[in-house]
Amino acid sequence: MGCFGWISFTTDYGLSDCFVATCRGTIARAAPSVQVIDITHLISPGDIPRGAMLLAQSVPHLPPAVHLAVVDPGVGTSRRGIAIETPGGLLVGPDNGLLIPAAEVLGGITRVVALTERSWFAAEVSATFHGRDIFAPVAARLALGADLSEAGPSLDPESLIRLPRPLVSSGEGFVDAEVISVDRFGNVQLAARAEHIDHLGDQLVVAGSRAVRASSFGQVPTGKLIAFVDSADYIALAINGGRAVVILSVLPGDMVRITSALPG
Amino acid sequence: MGCFGWISFTTDYGLSDCFVATCRGTIARAAPSVQVIDITHLISPGDIPRGAMLLAQSVPHLPPAVHLAVVDPGVGTSRRGIAIETPGGLLVGPDNGLLIPAAEVLGGITRVVALTERSWFAAEVSATFHGRDIFAPVAARLALGADLSEAGPSLDPESLIRLPRPLVSSGEGFVDAEVISVDRFGNVQLAARAEHIDHLGDQLVVAGSRAVRASSFGQVPTGKLIAFVDSADYIALAINGGRAVVILSVLPGDMVRITSALPG
Amino acid sequence: MGCFGWISFTTDYGLSDCFVATCRGTIARAAPSVQVIDITHLISPGDIPRGAMLLAQSVPHLPPAVHLAVVDPGVGTSRRGIAIETPGGLLVGPDNGLLIPAAEVLGGITRVVALTERSWFAAEVSATFHGRDIFAPVAARLALGADLSEAGPSLDPESLIRLPRPLVSSGEGFVDAEVISVDRFGNVQLAARAEHIDHLGDQLVVAGSRAVRASSFGQVPTGKLIAFVDSADYIALAINGGRAVVILSVLPGDMVRITSALPG
Repeated sequence: MGCFGWISFTTDYGLSDCFVATCRGTIARAAPSVQVIDITHLISPGDIPRGAMLLAQSVPHLPPAVHLAVVDPGVGTSRRGIAIETPGGLLVGPDNGLLIPAAEVLGGITRVVALTERSWFAAEVSATFHGRDIFAPVAARLALGADLSEAGPSLDPESLIRLPRPLVSSGEGFVDAEVISVDRFGNVQLAARAEHIDHLGDQLVVAGSRAVRASSFGQVPTGKLIAFVDSADYIALAINGGRAVVILSVLPGDMVRITSALPG
Repeated sequence: MGCFGWISFTTDYGLSDCFVATCRGTIARAAPSVQVIDITHLISPGDIPRGAMLLAQSVPHLPPAVHLAVVDPGVGTSRRGIAIETPGGLLVGPDNGLLIPAAEVLGGITRVVALTERSWFAAEVSATFHGRDIFAPVAARLALGADLSEAGPSLDPESLIRLPRPLVSSGEGFVDAEVISVDRFGNVQLAARAEHIDHLGDQLVVAGSRAVRASSFGQVPTGKLIAFVDSADYIALAINGGRAVVILSVLPGDMVRITSALPG
Repeated sequence: MGCFGWISFTTDYGLSDCFVATCRGTIARAAPSVQVIDITHLISPGDIPRGAMLLAQSVPHLPPAVHLAVVDPGVGTSRRGIAIETPGGLLVGPDNGLLIPAAEVLGGITRVVALTERSWFAAEVSATFHGRDIFAPVAARLALGADLSEAGPSLDPESLIRLPRPLVSSGEGFVDAEVISVDRFGNVQLAARAEHIDHLGDQLVVAGSRAVRASSFGQVPTGKLIAFVDSADYIALAINGGRAVVILSVLPGDMVRITSALPG
């Protein structure tokens, strides 16, 4: 796919140890002219769904890149390392579902290989830190223009591990939607899209609380719960001047029921 | 003002979501050669005074830059987006007081415009994430050398929202000073400058505790409370080997009284 | 030593204030083409041993660089500022032991100077922020190719402050090893190397708990405590799917005894 000037970098490594730095150093030594954009390194250890979500919601706004992502509780088992080609860029990481939602956002999987070519790895590969010893060197080499096919044998995309899709379902006068995330502002993002709830009108009941449909928390009085289309095009719940998550008391993975507040 | 090689970036977005990354990506796509220096993204949500303070205390040490700052509890209301020109650089963000102290440090406002030119924004502007969809693209375009006047109509600088200045006042034998910040080391920064307290001598009482005037905590015994001129030229309180904030039990916005410990 | 394209940066400054940003700005103004890799800024305030450890474990994976490190509880005292030359790069920071383990990893100290040349410092040097006013400008100047000898007078390497080495000792059927670090995943890194415990076999008792020697947590059942060679070549303790630190209840500096679980 030619060269990439950018590598994006997503992990659960935290910022208190030196895991991120040694990966950055590995990239810098192999591809000093490639720039790195950190997505986040504060994913809870092993939280693959959150890593997949953040990566998928970030890639539309990044330049063409090799997206390096490592949330890898299976490191040291037989789980495969993979590199995925899409129309919008490459993805490198473990085969545990982490990369798939972003690959779909980038146009779908056109090719995927298992990372087996040891000459692409660090000279010594540790048993527990494939981010530094396998994934970062592979990402650097791909950014420099090496072809995916040299990284290892092609895989059937159908063979890849996939996460369950966040749930959203509709019934007579209600929508049930899974909580995808809670952000720093206490806003609660749901798996639902605008089309799922448009028919319920502007006066809603969300998880037992009255809410109004609005375009922004800035348009309602302080303290009011709203449902709005957020910056990633999902339905989210917010309180003007407050934290919706406190009122709703939900976590990612919980289901939230939305109904019309008016008799149907 | 010509081109800028640097954008500084200050927000309350945190590091656990992908808000910072999508802004960085937006800048990278529009202005790939411009480098970004993060000031901090860990301002408490909506804490405009702290954002204003950190930006103002940082800009003297940064290269000429477009300073992008977004602490924006009013996003989605009628609050304006603005770009400010100063002798020392440009500032971009919401019109809520956040940018003014840094503008003053950079030499004062020479020009200010309202951000209304939609062709400078993202193709689709979300209702709740103007950092990504308005302020980052505008900062990138200004860094590339576009003229402020093309971003929107000029504003009267007097029309801008301003924060109250941190308080410092003197009376017979005392100085009352507002706490500006408490840093990671527990040091307490006051709104007072050296000239405010020089006449009180070296033996002080600060919020009821004995303190000495010194140039550095390294010059007094462990456990001793000192008042010193800090690295931003404010009077700060520290304890050698300890955390002054624990002894003083103050928060930003609190007033601290300083008197001479000696009979006047 | 010629020029360096990279500066690595390690501090206890945290990410919530603007200390890191003002140092970055200082480097950017002096050496705009030099790239900075953050190792971490979340070392606990004043924790020199942790800073020394993270720096030493990072440098093998970084490009040739000036390594700028500031964990400096003695700022403002008579402690010296130093720059160290090694075969693998330069180090700049306080003379308090912080830089020595990394210097050894980089091939040993070939030259060391006291930082006394004021023309290399900021125009005004604060009493409490030598990271910004002394160490960052010195690191930038060295990265641009200035010779160490111009920064100040040579020092005898034997005169440098050194930290005690982490302890590891063996006796009849046991090894006692100091805890070096606990990482984000709850893995406990010991001062011991493989050769210290190889003779104890694969069935171990570690701090009173049964453990097995393995190459990775992925090779044992969930919940099992293992001892393995970690990615920095130290013996570490981990639990597959869990946090070893919770079971072992240890902190850096504690001693852990390892014995064979089998009658000798």
